[in-house]
Amino acid sequence: MTEPLKAGATIGILGGGQLGRMLSVAAARLGFKTHIYEPGATPPAEHVAYRLTTASYEDEDALIAFANSVDVITYEFENIPTSALDILEAHRPIRPGREALRVSQDRLTEKSFLQELGLKTAPYAAVQTQDDLTAAVDQVGAPAILKTRRFGYDGKGQARLQTPDDIPQAIADMAGAPALLEGFVDFTHEVSVIAARGLTGDVACFDPGENVHRDGILHTTTVPATLTAGQRMDAVLLAARILNELEYVGVMGVELFVTSQGLIVNEIAPRVHNSGHWTQNGCAVDQFEQHIRAIVGWPLGDGQRHTDVVMENLIGQDINHVPQILRESNNALHLYGKEEIKEGRKMGHVNRIKPAST
Amino acid sequence: MTEPLKAGATIGILGGGQLGRMLSVAAARLGFKTHIYEPGATPPAEHVAYRLTTASYEDEDALIAFANSVDVITYEFENIPTSALDILEAHRPIRPGREALRVSQDRLTEKSFLQELGLKTAPYAAVQTQDDLTAAVDQVGAPAILKTRRFGYDGKGQARLQTPDDIPQAIADMAGAPALLEGFVDFTHEVSVIAARGLTGDVACFDPGENVHRDGILHTTTVPATLTAGQRMDAVLLAARILNELEYVGVMGVELFVTSQGLIVNEIAPRVHNSGHWTQNGCAVDQFEQHIRAIVGWPLGDGQRHTDVVMENLIGQDINHVPQILRESNNALHLYGKEEIKEGRKMGHVNRIKPAST
Repeated sequence: MTEPLKAGATIGILGGGQLGRMLSVAAARLGFKTHIYEPGATPPAEHVAYRLTTASYEDEDALIAFANSVDVITYEFENIPTSALDILEAHRPIRPGREALRVSQDRLTEKSFLQELGLKTAPYAAVQTQDDLTAAVDQVGAPAILKTRRFGYDGKGQARLQTPDDIPQAIADMAGAPALLEGFVDFTHEVSVIAARGLTGDVACFDPGENVHRDGILHTTTVPATLTAGQRMDAVLLAARILNELEYVGVMGVELFVTSQGLIVNEIAPRVHNSGHWTQNGCAVDQFEQHIRAIVGWPLGDGQRHTDVVMENLIGQDINHVPQILRESNNALHLYGKEEIKEGRKMGHVNRIKPAST
Repeated sequence: MTEPLKAGATIGILGGGQLGRMLSVAAARLGFKTHIYEPGATPPAEHVAYRLTTASYEDEDALIAFANSVDVITYEFENIPTSALDILEAHRPIRPGREALRVSQDRLTEKSFLQELGLKTAPYAAVQTQDDLTAAVDQVGAPAILKTRRFGYDGKGQARLQTPDDIPQAIADMAGAPALLEGFVDFTHEVSVIAARGLTGDVACFDPGENVHRDGILHTTTVPATLTAGQRMDAVLLAARILNELEYVGVMGVELFVTSQGLIVNEIAPRVHNSGHWTQNGCAVDQFEQHIRAIVGWPLGDGQRHTDVVMENLIGQDINHVPQILRESNNALHLYGKEEIKEGRKMGHVNRIKPAST
C-alpha cells in the first residue's frame, strides 16, 4: 500500500495504553476507525476505539485476524516481539517500518546507528559480564548508568554506578540481561524534538520542548524550550536526518541533551512521545493526528505552535490534584481512564497554556 | 444524584450523531466512559464510544437497560419523545432537565418563555388553519416564515411567505402540523452565545461567535464576533438569565440577532451547538467538555479564548475540500466518520485558527 488511505478505513494499533487511546481519538477526528490489539485487560484505549482484540502477541490466529480487519498497522510502544511483527507484516503494512523498530529496540544498536550517522551520543560500552563492566567503567568513567539493552522504559531496567564499588550490585540488577554502560553527559538541560515523516518523504517538526524528569519519569515539558535559534535549527535538522536515514513513516520522539559542545542524542522512540503531549493544546495538528496523517499517507501538518504550553504529567497520586487543576484557568486536562492508581503509573496530564495577551 | 460523579463513571448519551461523537471524546478526556443510545445504524458516535445500544425510543426494555447501565443521561438533540424521557428519568437523572426540553421542543412555548422573561423575540403568532395564517400575516406582516412548532432543524419544516398570496401553499407545506408564523427581524448579523450552567448554579459563557448561514444551514462561525463591549455583556447576561430561569445544567446554544434596538433572541438549543465547535481549538476547555463537566457536577471551565477562530462547516460535497484543508497551515479538521455524502448533510468542520503573532 503506497496510496493514501481513504477516510473510513480502519487503523490497527498495537497497544491499548494512553498513547493508543490518544491515537484513536486523533484517527476518529480524521474519519478513521481504530482496532486495538492488546494482551492486557481493560486497556484505556478501549473507551474510544471502534474495536478491541484481547490476545497475546504469541496468538498467531488472533494476529492474522487482526491484520486482516485493518488497512494499516501502527503501534504505541517499541517492544513488540519480532515473531508477531513477522506475522502481521505478511498481511498489512506496518508503519513506522521494521528498521526503526530494529534500531530502537536495542540500546546498543541505537547508539551505533546514531554514531554512524555522525551524531553525538553519551559514551557507552556493551556489557554482558562483570569483567565487561569493569572494562566499561574504565572506558566511560563513573558515575555511569548500566541499562539493559532491551525492554527498558521510565527508568526501569537501570542501575546507577556511583563508583566502581557498585559493579557487583549493578551486574546482579541486570540478572544476566545484555546491557550497556552509559557515561554521564555534562548537559544543561534536555529537550526533545517530535518529528514526523510522511509516506512521500516530507518531514515536519514541532517546536522542541524542554523536559524535566522526576524519579526517572518525565515530569514536565515546556514550550518554547530554552534554545538559541541555532540550537533549535540543529535539533530539527538532526531529527530529520534520523528519520530520513530510516526511511521512517510516522512520528518519532528524539531526546537531546543540550551541552556546551552541542546537542547529544539521548534516545529515540519510534512512536508518539510523552514529551509531545503539549501539541494537543498548542497546535492545530497535534502529534497524534500527525502520526495518523503520516501512516495513512495524508499530508503532514506543518507543526506550527499557536500558544505557549507547560505539559505536566499526573503520575500516581498526582491524580489527586485534579480538583485544583479543574478550577484553574487555561488548563487542558487529559485523563487516561485508568482504574487503579499505582506509584509511577501515568494517570493523565495537564497542558497549562499561556494564551497570547489580548 | 447531586454529588459530583467520579472519573470512571459512565455517561449515557441519547443520539449518536456528530454531537454525541464529540461529547464522547470529551467525556473520555475526563476519564469517563460513554454509552450511546441511537435508533439508526452505524452512528458516528459509535467509533469513539465505549458502548452502543441500537434501539428505538419506543423500546421500553432497551431504555430501562440503558438507564441502568449509566450514571447520568444527557442528549445531543432536543426532539426526544416524552414517553422515552419518562421511562429514563425514573431510573437516572437527565441533564439538562425536562423543563429545558419542554420549552425548547415547541417554538411557541419557547417564544412565550423568552417574552415572559422580558427578552425580545421576533414577532410571532400561532397558526393551525388557513384562517389563523391570514390573521397572523395581518399581525406580524410579510415577508415572514411559517415554521412547524416542533421537530424543525436546519431549515426543515419551514415555508417562506413573501406575500399573502403564498398563504395556501405555506399551509399545505405544514401538512396540518401546528405552526408558528415568525415575522422578519431587521438585523445586521447573528451571533450565538454558548453558555453553561453547573450543578451548583455557576454560569460560564464562551465568547459570542458570529454566524453566517447558507441555504438555511450554519456555514461559518467567527470569533471574536462584531460586537461592542456593551453588546457582548448584554449577550452573556441574557444567556445567563435563560439558564438560571430554567435551573439548567449543561451547555446551551443561544442564537441572537443583533439589531439597532438591541439583541433579539432567535432560538435556544438545550445542548452543545454547531456554533460552539470553534471552542475545540480556541479554548482550553471546549463546549463538549464544558457540557460533560456540568452534567457530572464538576467545576466549569471559565470559557477563556486563546486564539481567534473561524469555524467552517463541511456540508455535503464540501467534504471534497479536505485535501486542500489538510495542506493549509493552522487548520484543525474534524470529520464525523459518516459513510455516505448527502446534500445538506454535515460531514465535518474545520477550525481555521489565527495564532497570536510571535
